[in-house]
Amino acid sequence: MNIGVGVIGAGTVGGGVIETLTKNTDLIEARMGKAVRLAHVADLDASLIASFNLKGVVESSDAAALINDPNVHVVCELIGGIKPAKQFILSALQAKKHVVTANKMLLAYHGAELAHAASDNGVELRYEAAVAGGIPIIKALREGLAANHVQHVYGILNGTCNYILSRMTYESLEFDDVLKQAVALGFAEDPPDLDIEGADTAHKCQIIASLAFGTEVDYDDLHVEGITAITHADVAYARELGYIIKLMAVLRAGDEAIEACVHPALIPESHLLAAVRNEFNAVYVQSDIADATLYYGRGAGRLPTASAVVADVLDIARNEGPAQPAFVYGTRKRVLPMSESVGRYYLRLTTLDRPGILGEACTILGRCGVSISTCMQHEEHAPDSVHIVMMTHGTKEAELQAAIAEINALETTREPTHVIRVLED
Amino acid sequence: MNIGVGVIGAGTVGGGVIETLTKNTDLIEARMGKAVRLAHVADLDASLIASFNLKGVVESSDAAALINDPNVHVVCELIGGIKPAKQFILSALQAKKHVVTANKMLLAYHGAELAHAASDNGVELRYEAAVAGGIPIIKALREGLAANHVQHVYGILNGTCNYILSRMTYESLEFDDVLKQAVALGFAEDPPDLDIEGADTAHKCQIIASLAFGTEVDYDDLHVEGITAITHADVAYARELGYIIKLMAVLRAGDEAIEACVHPALIPESHLLAAVRNEFNAVYVQSDIADATLYYGRGAGRLPTASAVVADVLDIARNEGPAQPAFVYGTRKRVLPMSESVGRYYLRLTTLDRPGILGEACTILGRCGVSISTCMQHEEHAPDSVHIVMMTHGTKEAELQAAIAEINALETTREPTHVIRVLED
Repeated sequence: MNIGVGVIGAGTVGGGVIETLTKNTDLIEARMGKAVRLAHVADLDASLIASFNLKGVVESSDAAALINDPNVHVVCELIGGIKPAKQFILSALQAKKHVVTANKMLLAYHGAELAHAASDNGVELRYEAAVAGGIPIIKALREGLAANHVQHVYGILNGTCNYILSRMTYESLEFDDVLKQAVALGFAEDPPDLDIEGADTAHKCQIIASLAFGTEVDYDDLHVEGITAITHADVAYARELGYIIKLMAVLRAGDEAIEACVHPALIPESHLLAAVRNEFNAVYVQSDIADATLYYGRGAGRLPTASAVVADVLDIARNEGPAQPAFVYGTRKRVLPMSESVGRYYLRLTTLDRPGILGEACTILGRCGVSISTCMQHEEHAPDSVHIVMMTHGTKEAELQAAIAEINALETTREPTHVIRVLED
Repeated sequence: MNIGVGVIGAGTVGGGVIETLTKNTDLIEARMGKAVRLAHVADLDASLIASFNLKGVVESSDAAALINDPNVHVVCELIGGIKPAKQFILSALQAKKHVVTANKMLLAYHGAELAHAASDNGVELRYEAAVAGGIPIIKALREGLAANHVQHVYGILNGTCNYILSRMTYESLEFDDVLKQAVALGFAEDPPDLDIEGADTAHKCQIIASLAFGTEVDYDDLHVEGITAITHADVAYARELGYIIKLMAVLRAGDEAIEACVHPALIPESHLLAAVRNEFNAVYVQSDIADATLYYGRGAGRLPTASAVVADVLDIARNEGPAQPAFVYGTRKRVLPMSESVGRYYLRLTTLDRPGILGEACTILGRCGVSISTCMQHEEHAPDSVHIVMMTHGTKEAELQAAIAEINALETTREPTHVIRVLED
């Protein structure tokens, strides 16, 4: 049977899907052994659709018309946001249409509800494009690693953050300067808050948790920390120590509680993730049978995202048997509070340049049970003010934070201590 | 319907599949919504099977008994080699059993015949484990990038070669010393020829060509060059120039002819492939919609390979519709002869230390149409003998080889010139 595709939203990603389906029609038909054709495009802006100059494709301003078009078998929701996207998806599922979406925020908040609606109606809900754009990571987790218990996932999932941190690292720039340029060039969203504050990465982290660990995760249970506090000094000190700073989604399996959080982290320079530069994304998966695997590519952009959307459409077209479930949930697992997590830390103290201060800080850390592995003090970075940089051994976060609170309260401390977590294999 | 799995060959990979299916049974059933169970194991060595202490699994020394067991729906061929593996697979397909194999050599030589047999019998032939072990690269090419024209693929596909080259690069060792150690430790096959001469990589290159370009490729049409001629001096000079030497499978799309070859290559240090160390594999795919993607992981080993075999079994179990074709062939394409390929080259001349020799070499290169981009001469590496290292601009290989033949014929040339190709984005 030939497959008709409906696209709701003819903007960036929708436009990429329209372009892919029309440009690569023959390739797709040859590979699939059946035709997969664009049947209907809906957008409130008729001129946007008209710009594609489509032939033999119904154009409408009404998503309901598209959903109810009998020639549409798969509905691609590509408008983003919660409303009205959620209602469009639910309507399509109820009309027994398969749905493909790139809407990570919607899935993060309502993924389970939508997955149940798909399953109740015997149709599929697919979302490869919602995490890491053109990288087939959802497929890798669902199918490629289907026989594996996932042990941990480290993801570089936001291209804007990775771009900013890369330029800070390799061009010695400050955060604000790179951000301003990125916004001016249209490379970062304006306002860029969802990206740089970590929320976008957190939404993807929730989706990965559902797939990897079979559990729903509420946004409010995640520790989410962006990159706005990272300075060029931290990036430079980290390199001196052999590390690169990246914004990471970190997920770890556990029996009763999983770890799931988003924060900047020091990655050893020898780790492949440290070599992922600029706007590229990568996902590193450690699992019990396949061991380490990594997936790299463009996490955003018109065509890379379209590649993932169309791959989902083709998977649906290929499958003539029963619909595959969007998520397979088991027992709901608790997310470990950040205070209970254990890891190594990078600390950057800013203090007066006086004798005895280093000793005092070390005494506090020792009393709180935090053990130091490396310590370096640099020349004055400002009049009468020095940076003391330390790396700790494995420490419980609660103990570390108690020590930091004490250090920050010292009269000799000039700025709050910068704390960045360290990720190692 | 529950799915019964038969495993022919209880050795390294077969043992890994037995272990995965028995250890992760519950996980697999939860994810699949149906049971996928080991039903039958066949091996000539009964004691090998007995060592797994299996319960409720038929054990036999006869592959035919396994193939004809009505409880076996999917046959995993894990004995390797051409005979009798090919006959087992054909028998299984004729018995309407789906087949999963890790047998790259068999697929390289007889892939098309086996694919047609599968298709004629309405069953599947899958082979994720045949290329890059635990990395789901076949799935990425077949499904994840299904909407993409593949433009080029660069693959690090042999763990032994990558391990040897990594130690030569980062521990300043010579090829022979690392190889001896690797064989002694059981890390490399004994004899290691299939690995270090490039044949193993070439078999995987043929399989990738079938998938990426929809064309059969004969082994004899491939230029295949291993790593036995690489010296520590070359590795060190390459690093000085900002490159890492890797054994690469190189595939490039073309209208009438494709490029497909295996050879050592200089990769720029900033490229993610250059950071793939030790026994790890990686495949870099450039395609028209998704742009660059890369897939990394373990290319061999008991469990990583088993992860791929079981993923194939689960894909078959998931699909209750018509069987998917193993390969989708279009018009057969010619493989471009190496002499017609164009690229940059690293040259290492070993000459007498006399005035005028550099000028003479450059004159020959210039006359043959080869343009030099970098040149460096080092201190004497042996009495009265110097290394001259050059990088060329883009050059047709035939012209380069003509120049090298002339240079090698000079009375002042002490050793044949080392020629290594350069890969850039």
